[in-house]
Amino acid sequence: MSGPVRIGLLGCGTVGGAVVRQIAEGGRTIERASGHRLEVGPVLVRDVSRPRPGVDPALLTDDPERVLGDPSVRIVVEVMGGVEPTGDLLRQALRSGKSVVTANKQLLSRAGPEMLELASEAGTELRFEASVCAAIPVIKVLRESLLAAEIAGVTGIVNGTTNYILTEMRRSGLSYADALARAQDLGYAEADPTDDVGGADAAAKMAILASIAFHTRVSLDDVPYEGIDRLAGEDIELADSLGFSVKLLGVARLVEGAVSVRVFPALVPTGHRLAAVTGPDNAILLESGSAGEIMLVGPGAGGEETASAVVADVLSILGTHRGSFLHNALADAGRPIAPPSAAPTAYYVRLEVADRPGVLAKVASLMADAGLSIRTVVQSGEGDGARLVMILHRGGDDRLVPALERIAALDEVREQPVMLRVLGSGEGGGA
Amino acid sequence: MSGPVRIGLLGCGTVGGAVVRQIAEGGRTIERASGHRLEVGPVLVRDVSRPRPGVDPALLTDDPERVLGDPSVRIVVEVMGGVEPTGDLLRQALRSGKSVVTANKQLLSRAGPEMLELASEAGTELRFEASVCAAIPVIKVLRESLLAAEIAGVTGIVNGTTNYILTEMRRSGLSYADALARAQDLGYAEADPTDDVGGADAAAKMAILASIAFHTRVSLDDVPYEGIDRLAGEDIELADSLGFSVKLLGVARLVEGAVSVRVFPALVPTGHRLAAVTGPDNAILLESGSAGEIMLVGPGAGGEETASAVVADVLSILGTHRGSFLHNALADAGRPIAPPSAAPTAYYVRLEVADRPGVLAKVASLMADAGLSIRTVVQSGEGDGARLVMILHRGGDDRLVPALERIAALDEVREQPVMLRVLGSGEGGGA
Repeated sequence: MSGPVRIGLLGCGTVGGAVVRQIAEGGRTIERASGHRLEVGPVLVRDVSRPRPGVDPALLTDDPERVLGDPSVRIVVEVMGGVEPTGDLLRQALRSGKSVVTANKQLLSRAGPEMLELASEAGTELRFEASVCAAIPVIKVLRESLLAAEIAGVTGIVNGTTNYILTEMRRSGLSYADALARAQDLGYAEADPTDDVGGADAAAKMAILASIAFHTRVSLDDVPYEGIDRLAGEDIELADSLGFSVKLLGVARLVEGAVSVRVFPALVPTGHRLAAVTGPDNAILLESGSAGEIMLVGPGAGGEETASAVVADVLSILGTHRGSFLHNALADAGRPIAPPSAAPTAYYVRLEVADRPGVLAKVASLMADAGLSIRTVVQSGEGDGARLVMILHRGGDDRLVPALERIAALDEVREQPVMLRVLGSGEGGGA
Repeated sequence: MSGPVRIGLLGCGTVGGAVVRQIAEGGRTIERASGHRLEVGPVLVRDVSRPRPGVDPALLTDDPERVLGDPSVRIVVEVMGGVEPTGDLLRQALRSGKSVVTANKQLLSRAGPEMLELASEAGTELRFEASVCAAIPVIKVLRESLLAAEIAGVTGIVNGTTNYILTEMRRSGLSYADALARAQDLGYAEADPTDDVGGADAAAKMAILASIAFHTRVSLDDVPYEGIDRLAGEDIELADSLGFSVKLLGVARLVEGAVSVRVFPALVPTGHRLAAVTGPDNAILLESGSAGEIMLVGPGAGGEETASAVVADVLSILGTHRGSFLHNALADAGRPIAPPSAAPTAYYVRLEVADRPGVLAKVASLMADAGLSIRTVVQSGEGDGARLVMILHRGGDDRLVPALERIAALDEVREQPVMLRVLGSGEGGGA
């Protein structure tokens, strides 16, 4: 294994800070996986006097040259934002043979093609997963998994602010202005929401996605966009009554061999899978001839999520040791396997019973003896055709299975009890 | 560029045939993207006398040695299925330094760890995206994008047969037996559906996913599983009435540092994103601390889809030329950009009008003059507060925008018309 890989940072705000922390906390996993140890090098900030958690103060600098001119820096991570001078700094990094990872959609949607060309000429790499939909790995999937799949269309909900606003307008009947104010309160919208609600943010992301999907230069100027700022609450209601949800969509398609990319508020049929994407989530539907329709869904923003995509790009540049990671993991045997009862869930239980006095009491007391508590019980029918349906609070199979055996042995129970687990029953963790 | 990369095939059924075709049809894209030309080499089949489209009959063989012993074969693609002797053939391939791409979940869920170790020792690669959920790139995302993301849970609908059956039981009120018969009619279920409906197929996939997600040896024997074959229609109905959908879930979680993996039919709250996954689709929800909850959805089976994952794995083994693909594409300038009007959609139009005789006729005639036809129109209110809501058949902005300008100029129209596009309006293609 060679020496550590030094990462220079341009910017150290929310995303940059999360990158530093993830590199520190994930260090051992990253090293085992990639065969590389990552090390944070010089960090460009505006105010060097303000300490940054996890960063040696001696590494903070307000001079870009300390990052770009440092021959030990192999990869430059750009999380400072802005189009210029950021673009010029990254061009300089690429020309000097450093690889670049950036989260900067505004820059890429304008200068991406030219910068990719520059990276190629310099024999380096430019990666930008974090520029579109944070940790949703849509660029990797398009560039690698679907490389040969002939993409026919990319349809996305690629702006979380507007999706949250539209969801709230529909769900709570809020006006556009009130929904926007709520989004701002919750941190889903900026104080100046123009780029989000006007569609420019989505247009920048769609320009980047369309470039990759269709292997074509698409710049922000090629993407006509409309926002949601002129939508009235009554349009949401009318759409609903007609069987549609309103979503701000980015749509990139091939139309007679040409690439069409647009952003607009659209009526989406309620049964369509994009209609089910609510709140601040993003989703991208990729249509291809050979791979079918694949949808990726997840949070499209957030400091940790964006940093996660940045770290993944760094690891992609370094490449993984062929097989070494899995090999190491398997040689370690990794973690132990938990016994089946170790993952408690809530339960649904159906009992077909004879409705005699005291049957519910008997069942409930056998459950209680096993330490299981009943959340809801519904009794229906009467006489020999009665039925008890119960939802139990979280417990383990090691308790429920013997309890059900005892219950099945009751005279009043006419059939083998039916037991199903309940996913994510709000008592901490999934099923 | 070096000579072509020769691919040997073990098996040439539905998936193998699709691999051959995709390599042929995607050749130019693959070459530009990866810098490699792929070439199909010897193909192991049972019956060499039966011709295979796109395969030189001289390449067909019933002797595995002609594939495995051919020094010009660099990558072996295994699509013959079965646990043995398939496993031994792949071990031989790996030992001789060939990389292996396989779609064989039964083999991997039993012998995966040992075979990965073998690949690592031999300095070759073993890839198996196609073994889990066809073209949904969940293994690539886990292995690469989420490598450092500390996965907390993997919850999946990883069997399309059972998801189709459960969807039909709920939607059409079919019994389990009738829904299974329908799935068999449609080709979603095999003549012997035991592995699917009993949960074994899902358990094999979850063993593979849990190994990668938690860097741990998980074998099929570590995964307790239950199927849906004992579910009654009334459980689906009762779950529905309680606000749940029934899904066959694979759940892999960390429980106090140990890996718990299980497959069981579960009640999923109707609002949960997994509940929205219907029909034969698969979905995998990946929970991680830093990347948030990411869900991948798509077809989990199918010859073309499985072959697409095989081809993607082949390309991953070869690696892509750093930047060269995008560079080439951009140097070509790729495809032209379509004018905005080139992607026609259906439209929703809302007009606030004064309800005077003939207003609808005027509007309809201006639409007709522009070549736009009205699919539905709803008029509400009366007097000065009347409203027309229309859904128009598919047209282009170049027609609608001038028509709306003329409509806005009518005396009876009191506000600027509101126009929204309609996604996937059933007239061929999306919005």
